[in-house]
Amino acid sequence: MNFYEKSLQMHRAKKGKLEVVGKVPVKTKDDLATAYTPGVAQPCLEIAKNPEDAYEYTIKSNTVAIVSDGSAVLGLGNIGGLASLPVMEGKALLFKTFGGVDAFPICLDTRDIDKIIETVKMIAPTFGGINLEDIAAPGCFEVERRLQEELDIPVFHDDQHGTAIVVCAGVINAFKLLNKELKDVAAVIAGAGAAGNAIVKMFLRLGITDIVVCDRKGIISSDRIEELSQDKVELLAITNKNDIRGTLADAIKGKDLFVGVSGPGIVTEEMIVSMSEDSVVFAMSNPEPEILPDSAKRAGAKIVGTGRSDFPNQINNVLAFPGIFKGALRARAKAITEEMKVAAAFALANLVTESELTAEYVIPNAFHSGVADAVADAVANASRQ
Amino acid sequence: MNFYEKSLQMHRAKKGKLEVVGKVPVKTKDDLATAYTPGVAQPCLEIAKNPEDAYEYTIKSNTVAIVSDGSAVLGLGNIGGLASLPVMEGKALLFKTFGGVDAFPICLDTRDIDKIIETVKMIAPTFGGINLEDIAAPGCFEVERRLQEELDIPVFHDDQHGTAIVVCAGVINAFKLLNKELKDVAAVIAGAGAAGNAIVKMFLRLGITDIVVCDRKGIISSDRIEELSQDKVELLAITNKNDIRGTLADAIKGKDLFVGVSGPGIVTEEMIVSMSEDSVVFAMSNPEPEILPDSAKRAGAKIVGTGRSDFPNQINNVLAFPGIFKGALRARAKAITEEMKVAAAFALANLVTESELTAEYVIPNAFHSGVADAVADAVANASRQ
Repeated sequence: MNFYEKSLQMHRAKKGKLEVVGKVPVKTKDDLATAYTPGVAQPCLEIAKNPEDAYEYTIKSNTVAIVSDGSAVLGLGNIGGLASLPVMEGKALLFKTFGGVDAFPICLDTRDIDKIIETVKMIAPTFGGINLEDIAAPGCFEVERRLQEELDIPVFHDDQHGTAIVVCAGVINAFKLLNKELKDVAAVIAGAGAAGNAIVKMFLRLGITDIVVCDRKGIISSDRIEELSQDKVELLAITNKNDIRGTLADAIKGKDLFVGVSGPGIVTEEMIVSMSEDSVVFAMSNPEPEILPDSAKRAGAKIVGTGRSDFPNQINNVLAFPGIFKGALRARAKAITEEMKVAAAFALANLVTESELTAEYVIPNAFHSGVADAVADAVANASRQ
Repeated sequence: MNFYEKSLQMHRAKKGKLEVVGKVPVKTKDDLATAYTPGVAQPCLEIAKNPEDAYEYTIKSNTVAIVSDGSAVLGLGNIGGLASLPVMEGKALLFKTFGGVDAFPICLDTRDIDKIIETVKMIAPTFGGINLEDIAAPGCFEVERRLQEELDIPVFHDDQHGTAIVVCAGVINAFKLLNKELKDVAAVIAGAGAAGNAIVKMFLRLGITDIVVCDRKGIISSDRIEELSQDKVELLAITNKNDIRGTLADAIKGKDLFVGVSGPGIVTEEMIVSMSEDSVVFAMSNPEPEILPDSAKRAGAKIVGTGRSDFPNQINNVLAFPGIFKGALRARAKAITEEMKVAAAFALANLVTESELTAEYVIPNAFHSGVADAVADAVANASRQ
């Protein structure tokens, strides 16, 4: 039985993967009077007097909403909020298992940007943070920006920043192993969606300034300015400083780093051959990568990562988001800043010790112990600076 | 230490009363691949093809949203969504403890009726039912009506119907004990808010047709038609058939049943003396009832109930809502109908056996075993008829 059949069977047997349980017993009249009426009036009154007290007396201090409109789910595309629920439940499961964070799926019956924003604002009181998930670009950018402006709790689109943080951790370690400074790295990114955008911005933070981004039509360059969407115009302003033009094959020539957040099989062995001598390839299209690791290696790539668990160097968001929110909630941060994201990437990278670091192990395994705590500590520290 | 201090201490120590936990382990790569990617794509695809399959593969089948704007919380009034969170968490705790139903608090940052309705519609995909809580009248009526019209899952305002169901169970048993048929009962209800409204409607279903309702200004009668709000005009149309006028003291004279869902101490011993010989008094204002049980008894009331756990005959909503939703979810009902509510009231009443039935025990205790299952069975059966 493959994973698809096994998963279907498990989901049917369990009727979903989450339950909401109490942290206190209700076995006696006294229990009822303490957890519910009349006693519960007291924490309510304290919070009414001082809203910050919600963090003292309620689940807000450790609870995250996983919000999706189901418009860009896995490789499945726009399947809608209801059909995205198994993914969001899975995400909540990982939040709890890896980070001890309570998370609850909020699947939305709309794709309208304004309605998504309004709904999340309306339900925010229960939550200490908002994890946006599987919302299609470019809408996701506006949803995140406006929500973060209007709410005083962290708003984090994991498809963007979670991915970028884990990619950056891998990149830091890959070029440490290859003895190349990040400022000297020339990078090409295939995919100009949610993840591609965030990776560009984090690369710039890391000092990688030579970046070319390709979408389905080729290199994002000034000759395409008329047909580019607003978010791609903004991306162009911070990438492709030599304004090169052409296809992905043109872009990849001589580059040290390829990052794929696009689609299956778009990279050939010839393209890898055309890269610099010490090339790093992170082909993260899932389940079918942009190029299979064996092919990339055969064509000369020194270090290869994918999104898959059955190859070495899995770029897996679960390395980041549980610790990110754990740290942000602990520090009671009002947003996840660029500094916090960079700190998280370095914390992740540092979990691989000098002696462990090899071409097959530039990024810790999802089950590596202490990942979430290391990330949480780094994030909480960075938030206080 | 009193319950208020004890409750505050407990809430601070626990940082809220709920957690969201997994029903499946995530300890290996295989677990990840089954609960999350790539396996999770399969249940998503099935639901995308057939939305009803959400009940097979997700938490929707057993999950209820507890929605509040915090506008009428306990006796505290309009404290807002955030400050209502301890109550909503408590409610979720009782849903799970008594009914095995997973419930999650959705506290809203608005009191606008249209925004409440829109928000609940937007977040509905995750949930198999909506429990509205502590939303002030008359807004609560419109919120419930419009949501039930627009959603295909049950929408239930517990302050209305939960209270009415438990009151009716007590009334059924009280008059069984007093050998009076319900059609011959004359009732007065103090309080024309959410609970008062629902009690009137359920009394009519039970065959109690002689009902007079009082609000703060006295009897709701035709001479007040100019100043009555729309919901009170509608209430008048189905009550006070002799169109009597005056105060609560005028209304209560000669009545067999007093139901108080109003405020503390508004009923005097003289009023109880003026009732019929076999009088029943349910004084449910909390924590201070309309009249204390000792006074009511001294003045001749045969059977007395309150909302408090430290007197006999506690009219406690926890007797109803866990079983109501358990039954409705099991039957996959699209609404909680009048028939289902009446069936729940009789199921509750029948939990007190003939030999147990006394003036001090007309309604089962909250911890009586099998309450939720008895209610759930009755509700599920009624929904199928």
